[in-house]
Amino acid sequence: MTSPMAQTSPKAKVTTPTDREIRVERIFAAPRERVWRAMMDPAVIAQWWGRGNKLVIEKFEPQRGGHWRFVEHAADGVHGFEGRFREVTPPQRVVQTFEWDGMPGHVAVNDMTLEDLGDGRTRLVTISLFHTTEERDGMLHSGMEGGLNQSYEALDQVLRKLPY
Amino acid sequence: MTSPMAQTSPKAKVTTPTDREIRVERIFAAPRERVWRAMMDPAVIAQWWGRGNKLVIEKFEPQRGGHWRFVEHAADGVHGFEGRFREVTPPQRVVQTFEWDGMPGHVAVNDMTLEDLGDGRTRLVTISLFHTTEERDGMLHSGMEGGLNQSYEALDQVLRKLPY
Repeated sequence: MTSPMAQTSPKAKVTTPTDREIRVERIFAAPRERVWRAMMDPAVIAQWWGRGNKLVIEKFEPQRGGHWRFVEHAADGVHGFEGRFREVTPPQRVVQTFEWDGMPGHVAVNDMTLEDLGDGRTRLVTISLFHTTEERDGMLHSGMEGGLNQSYEALDQVLRKLPY
Repeated sequence: MTSPMAQTSPKAKVTTPTDREIRVERIFAAPRERVWRAMMDPAVIAQWWGRGNKLVIEKFEPQRGGHWRFVEHAADGVHGFEGRFREVTPPQRVVQTFEWDGMPGHVAVNDMTLEDLGDGRTRLVTISLFHTTEERDGMLHSGMEGGLNQSYEALDQVLRKLPY
């Protein structure tokens, strides 16, 4: 019998609401302010985004028009990711573009909201919009879901340890 | 009576093939290699892209994955434009993203082809794909068509004077 208090990480719910979108939903066992800080502080991002891989944050300017660029040093090589912020509304919403160096010029828009569930938990919902269905499907088949779950499990750990 | 040799510039044909696209077609009275050079040489771009306004080319890396960033100094202020190259195939095709600083994170993909018409003229066709119809319509209503025609008239002038 598994204790209900066992720290099993929930899986992200990944769905496709339209033929150019991916929707991700995930509950975090931490208040919204803390989840926000873990997602917007480069020193903290570096602890979970790369799922154990070294992550170099070359640029992170979380405000309208600001740019971001992360470089992940993985077993299979070095992967750059970058984009630009369209909207940053603490502690509830970030809209930003997302582009992987391996497919330059293929740009998704990630619209993330954090909902305060009122019981110390937070619901994250991200809608990613692609220019084409093919690009959307390419992302779905890239191992994105597994990678996302690994990142969010690492984020769970970080959220438990954060001093604030 | 107007002489058929009068140097009246043709207008670009602007159409909307789908609800997220803008198609631009324009004939240039110059061979394809010359049009290509005028579009890919930063020193030449600075002579026509800004339609008489000062243009600062901060970055121009025309190869897969390279970035570009132009800053136009216009009467109404300073406007930055930037993006990334998806494909550069001389002298016939460039696919690149396009983003205006005034609407950061709203990204169009411009797919430009140059067709050699075999009589010393070149047909340019650009298909711009937007994430949403609203973004497409915003571009259409931004004065884009007038600006485009001014740029292409300036390019006509440059093409006549180019030493190669």
